[in-house]
Amino acid sequence: MRIAILGAGAVGSSVAELAGEYGHTVTALADSRGAAVDPGGIDVETALDRKEREGVVGGSDPEDALAGAYDVLVEATPTTLGDAQPGFGHLRAALERDRHVVLANKGPVAERYADVRALERESEGRVLMEATVGGAMPVLSTIDDFGPGRITAARGVLNGTANFVLSRMAAEGLGYEHVLAEAQDLGVAEADPSFDVEGTDAALKCVILANVLARGDREYTLADADVEGIKSLPGSALELANEDGRTIRLIGEVSDGAVRVGPRLVPAYGALAVTGTRNIVQLETEHAGRLNVSGRGAGGPETATAVLADVDRLDS
Amino acid sequence: MRIAILGAGAVGSSVAELAGEYGHTVTALADSRGAAVDPGGIDVETALDRKEREGVVGGSDPEDALAGAYDVLVEATPTTLGDAQPGFGHLRAALERDRHVVLANKGPVAERYADVRALERESEGRVLMEATVGGAMPVLSTIDDFGPGRITAARGVLNGTANFVLSRMAAEGLGYEHVLAEAQDLGVAEADPSFDVEGTDAALKCVILANVLARGDREYTLADADVEGIKSLPGSALELANEDGRTIRLIGEVSDGAVRVGPRLVPAYGALAVTGTRNIVQLETEHAGRLNVSGRGAGGPETATAVLADVDRLDS
Repeated sequence: MRIAILGAGAVGSSVAELAGEYGHTVTALADSRGAAVDPGGIDVETALDRKEREGVVGGSDPEDALAGAYDVLVEATPTTLGDAQPGFGHLRAALERDRHVVLANKGPVAERYADVRALERESEGRVLMEATVGGAMPVLSTIDDFGPGRITAARGVLNGTANFVLSRMAAEGLGYEHVLAEAQDLGVAEADPSFDVEGTDAALKCVILANVLARGDREYTLADADVEGIKSLPGSALELANEDGRTIRLIGEVSDGAVRVGPRLVPAYGALAVTGTRNIVQLETEHAGRLNVSGRGAGGPETATAVLADVDRLDS
Repeated sequence: MRIAILGAGAVGSSVAELAGEYGHTVTALADSRGAAVDPGGIDVETALDRKEREGVVGGSDPEDALAGAYDVLVEATPTTLGDAQPGFGHLRAALERDRHVVLANKGPVAERYADVRALERESEGRVLMEATVGGAMPVLSTIDDFGPGRITAARGVLNGTANFVLSRMAAEGLGYEHVLAEAQDLGVAEADPSFDVEGTDAALKCVILANVLARGDREYTLADADVEGIKSLPGSALELANEDGRTIRLIGEVSDGAVRVGPRLVPAYGALAVTGTRNIVQLETEHAGRLNVSGRGAGGPETATAVLADVDRLDS
């Protein structure tokens, strides 16, 4: 398949680096400042070197990437809320040209799911989005496998940064600010960590799960989610939980038509008490009990494998 | 899809019961003693009632089920070793008629994988087998998703009976014979539990994983597996492990071309220390770290969902 990649951050770069190994050709790689475009296949290494040295992947206009030759558009620009632009516009442009879209960007399917599905119905192209929920973890493909109607609820730990902070606080008895600073030093938390620690990122993933499970019967956006982060959680709460054989995790949940994210007490050694940056999703199934899937929920190569699995699905 | 089901035990009966809900028609249900066959769709409830009352699902010859009208043959007769008969013969007959085969029976793909793939290449029909490894857990579909070449190793707890016995022994400080008798009372262990407690069942699943991961470069059978069961494990070993923060599980492993099953020390609260009859599979991936999938590894409805997910894959 010929792949055009919008977004040259950790995920977009990793998709570009791994695409050849999967037998695909990268015909464009773009970020907001420039693009490398070649219908015969760009030189990925040169483009990424140039980004590192000069801050741009190539001298072409980013719009040329969108208008160029490709079978699949990989949308890996940063997630935005509300109108989900510019990601939504990129998706629309590709679908209007009857091209497939693989999303790593959560915005379009968290904030405008019905619009995305409406555009997809008018197009020969399809929209896949495994990478938007839980990085490398096969969450949406498992739901698809069971049939969304046979999953009665989903819950889990869906943000590695918040989980790192909580599990370090619990294990070391340290305060929130201390552990957050440590996480920032390690590159686990961003300079502005609000998206992660306030629960927004976990909520977007839950909203996407809710949309997939609702199968169009109802549309969810971030505004439908009841979201509480971990910023105001005192270390004493973790100590109290610990005395009771429990700990606290930022749990996202989709059940009975509601989407909720917040700190919850969970058994200290139970499945939901994953440590460090690991994620877990629990699916309650109609006939097969509870399924757990856990793994690395973020990271460039990890998320890129989910993107490339989607590309392979379109190819088969 | 029209489904013919061979085997009317827990799995075959559950497939028959759930097939209608999935939009499929059961055109035959057979065990070794008789069959209900109707190209327009059998009455599943009547057939299962008759089995309960009279011991046979219907008055037709089981061979008529195999020769009848269907798109997919579900092979759910008991797993046999060596020549894997009669399951292998059923699979061959269906493939020679260009019909698809969905296996719940582990024998054909554990003992005669190359033969199965050779027959499949000559047929318009395909062979799927998600139900043979880990019941409801999406193990083979996850491997397929990643591409078998990108999974570097697999390990896990693949037999619920052995795991129930070990986790009860560890939790209650009871001896093997005592817990086994309890498991038999609960219906968790069979009257002859040797297939489970000697590691054979777990080994067959590992052999299937090894065959899938080898992608035809090498064929594995049970004879290639190094297998040790849990029968001779003294309770004192569990006590010693416990003093060290560890426990013992029957772990199957596929790595570096070898298949091994045996009791192993694992961290007491780690991912591999699942309790009761739960199973877990860990996949080591090339670019995405370690993935864990856990859930119910056996049971009629659980395994039937995996069978029906395979049927849906053939339908799409």
